[in-house]
Amino acid sequence: MNSQNSQVFYATNAFTGELLTTAFPVHGEIEVNQAAEAAAKVARSFRRLSNEKRANLLCSIASELEARREDIVACAHLETALPQARLEGEVGRTANQLRLFADVVKSGSYHQAIFDTPNPERQPLPKPDIRRQQIAIGPVAVFGASNFPLAFSAAGGDTASALAAGCPVIVKGHTAHPGTSQIVAECIENALNKEDLPSAIFTLLQGNKRELGQALVTHPKIKAVGFTGSVSGGRALFNLAQQRPEPIPFYGELGAINPTFILPEAMKNNASLAEQFVASMTMGCGQFCTKPGVVFALNTPETQAFIETAQALIRQQSPSTLLTQGIRETYENEVVKRAADQGINVTYSQAESPNVASALFVTDSQNWRTNPEWEEEIFGPQSVIVICKDFEDLLDLSETLSGTLTATIHATETDAPLAEQLIPCLEEIAGRLVFNGWPTGVEVGYAMVHGGPYPASTHAASTSVGAEAIHRWLRPVAYQALPESLLPDSLKTSNPLNIQRAIDGKTS
Amino acid sequence: MNSQNSQVFYATNAFTGELLTTAFPVHGEIEVNQAAEAAAKVARSFRRLSNEKRANLLCSIASELEARREDIVACAHLETALPQARLEGEVGRTANQLRLFADVVKSGSYHQAIFDTPNPERQPLPKPDIRRQQIAIGPVAVFGASNFPLAFSAAGGDTASALAAGCPVIVKGHTAHPGTSQIVAECIENALNKEDLPSAIFTLLQGNKRELGQALVTHPKIKAVGFTGSVSGGRALFNLAQQRPEPIPFYGELGAINPTFILPEAMKNNASLAEQFVASMTMGCGQFCTKPGVVFALNTPETQAFIETAQALIRQQSPSTLLTQGIRETYENEVVKRAADQGINVTYSQAESPNVASALFVTDSQNWRTNPEWEEEIFGPQSVIVICKDFEDLLDLSETLSGTLTATIHATETDAPLAEQLIPCLEEIAGRLVFNGWPTGVEVGYAMVHGGPYPASTHAASTSVGAEAIHRWLRPVAYQALPESLLPDSLKTSNPLNIQRAIDGKTS
Repeated sequence: MNSQNSQVFYATNAFTGELLTTAFPVHGEIEVNQAAEAAAKVARSFRRLSNEKRANLLCSIASELEARREDIVACAHLETALPQARLEGEVGRTANQLRLFADVVKSGSYHQAIFDTPNPERQPLPKPDIRRQQIAIGPVAVFGASNFPLAFSAAGGDTASALAAGCPVIVKGHTAHPGTSQIVAECIENALNKEDLPSAIFTLLQGNKRELGQALVTHPKIKAVGFTGSVSGGRALFNLAQQRPEPIPFYGELGAINPTFILPEAMKNNASLAEQFVASMTMGCGQFCTKPGVVFALNTPETQAFIETAQALIRQQSPSTLLTQGIRETYENEVVKRAADQGINVTYSQAESPNVASALFVTDSQNWRTNPEWEEEIFGPQSVIVICKDFEDLLDLSETLSGTLTATIHATETDAPLAEQLIPCLEEIAGRLVFNGWPTGVEVGYAMVHGGPYPASTHAASTSVGAEAIHRWLRPVAYQALPESLLPDSLKTSNPLNIQRAIDGKTS
Repeated sequence: MNSQNSQVFYATNAFTGELLTTAFPVHGEIEVNQAAEAAAKVARSFRRLSNEKRANLLCSIASELEARREDIVACAHLETALPQARLEGEVGRTANQLRLFADVVKSGSYHQAIFDTPNPERQPLPKPDIRRQQIAIGPVAVFGASNFPLAFSAAGGDTASALAAGCPVIVKGHTAHPGTSQIVAECIENALNKEDLPSAIFTLLQGNKRELGQALVTHPKIKAVGFTGSVSGGRALFNLAQQRPEPIPFYGELGAINPTFILPEAMKNNASLAEQFVASMTMGCGQFCTKPGVVFALNTPETQAFIETAQALIRQQSPSTLLTQGIRETYENEVVKRAADQGINVTYSQAESPNVASALFVTDSQNWRTNPEWEEEIFGPQSVIVICKDFEDLLDLSETLSGTLTATIHATETDAPLAEQLIPCLEEIAGRLVFNGWPTGVEVGYAMVHGGPYPASTHAASTSVGAEAIHRWLRPVAYQALPESLLPDSLKTSNPLNIQRAIDGKTS
């Protein structure tokens, strides 16, 4: 979309900090209004489109992305400094995610068709015929994330699940990769074109002004928001969404510390664990939302060895090129601040401006308890190891943690009785428990939960990754005593969609 | 629970307006804190209780209510002026609702167990074993409603579904029926006792100070809220819930106009429709959340006959005793104000202070459009008939309506083409469509949706009535690579609960 004002902004070369040459329009309230009104006009026909046609659209977008893989990777590499191999993988993941949602749509399970059989003879009142399905809620706003220029951006998880549900999507592209977003938007436009669908089903808005996001979240035609980003930015937009005359669901993934608990027998395998830990915390330069931000372990010689190995590995790490100058400055400030705190020590890797050092902090449970600010996520290659006095101390700390995307346990069979005590605590703070693994790497499947209690998510009952994410954009409607001809296909007695239905509490 | 302060309040005889003699403690922040801390302490063991034991608790509460049916009905009748037969029915409905949730718990379907089969051979990365279930979110606050002293109060739908999910419940009893709430709370306490469960699983707090509700909604140990009441009161509490450091889900059912559309061929049956309409709008003295608050019909001789019959029936209505003095004053003020507006006429029934008149307004689509405040719900025996120029006019009006619990269509086979155009509009504003019936009477079943876009509900993806309401109080957790022995029973490969599970996108 062109901009009504003459302002433009430029992407930055993430390696050099220099501006790139392509100018992008700075969109604002006028463009939000145009896009939202246009989306609202096509929303009804899009939600009533056949499952097959919506599935075709998703597959078509996947193919378009793959066809432009080279352009996308080259542009994203320059804009984000993420390695090309990783970006290649991310194109594949994004395409597969679209195809997963195509399968979800085709199966029709998302309708959640539920029937109550009527009983005209029931006393004192006849029992009515009631059937329920889920329908799309209307136009959706999606905020692209800096750290996944593909999988959590213009054609990322929220866009895929919202289109699958039958909602038009307006994306606010992240300023860290406007060129990448632009190519991806072209892919979606081409797919809409090929599938003979109106272009208003998808709009990319770009710009470096806060007003753009605010206008999107508060527009009356926008019916829900998907957001991945910082606690401060996300919470501000969440507040706006809730303060609207008509509050709307705001699915924000804001921040997570992803605690890892290494139980004593498992810790005997300390060299291998240290290597895995450092690989997980520095993966993608520590810019994954599932980075293990804190490790809890008992005060044993094996833990000391684990720490020493991890510190040695950190010292060998190359400097990290972070996604943006803003992320780098925040990272450096927060690490320096934490390093100056009492009761915590730090080991750094090499640094070479503008590339930053990885930082591994070590402290004990007593200092951790008196410095609650250490639980705040620092975005970048940084983590904290907390030495606990004993298992009770570790268990007690697990009860104090904020909501988080993941919680990880390392345990052997001998540790199982301890793990058994820990699991109920961790279930209550995390969206996903990981056993003898590491939290980075989020599988896109049917069972994935990428969410959790606040601040991991503003909507703990939802996931931003995996098939169940489609439910973000749906709401139920019951139909009482409608004749067969007027019922939606998903609820007709003849079951023309051949979908699964639950009848009187039992699945057919 | 006793109160820490010495304040008390009294119930009112709804027939006479006189205070009754039993004193009730005025609870405040101190009691909220005690109850919430105690609830949090038992939350983990309660959520991990076997499905069978939680189902037994629900059935036990149902039996206790039935055992005290006489006391409950006598007390509620005095406090609310609702007819004894209706209250008898409401005890039965409330008990049946508890038993429905016992069935839901026993079936285990609420776990929503989903499996992704691992594939260690997958390239480039092995596919992990991920299994997902839903768990209870923790202590829940429930606000009793004035108009259903049983089905939407201390042991009402929100309490039943929250206990079913495994959440401790703290109820703020409605000031309109403290004695009824007290008896119901005793029933729940007895049931907890019989089932050998801690009393902190359920607490009734009472009081006539706004601070009580505010303290409940903002207490950090409260993890979700169920509310049924007015737009103004509900929105104020919703705002508090969203402004907390950790925002929590607020399931508020606030207000609905429940539009009814009578299509021209159906209108030919006008005498019978008028009778049904007046019965529905005056049922329970118009104090149902599903009262048909507006009827849209075309400008035909049959509609004129419908209006005249309805007006004649209204004139014959007996005066109505409303639930409370506050409700009566608001009703009278709003009806008088609307009656003084230009472009609308009114027909009253008899009135005899303190009993109020039913009021039937008639206007046309042009005046309706220019008086958007007429769409606001007036709680009590009042409704509006809007005469539309033609079907396009009616269809156009249907697009302007706010969110509502229900939308009703009366149509014959001849009207079907018009109904077909209307249904997509009504799906977008309502939680339930009713065909050739009336919206009052909300079936408690598997397929019911009692909710809808704001202000019908603050959470349109949820229902406050029916089996699906259990999902209000649950959130998903994924378990990655946990050994069989550490997995929750719902996710063990051996399936000891014998529940239905979805594996790789297919239901087993």
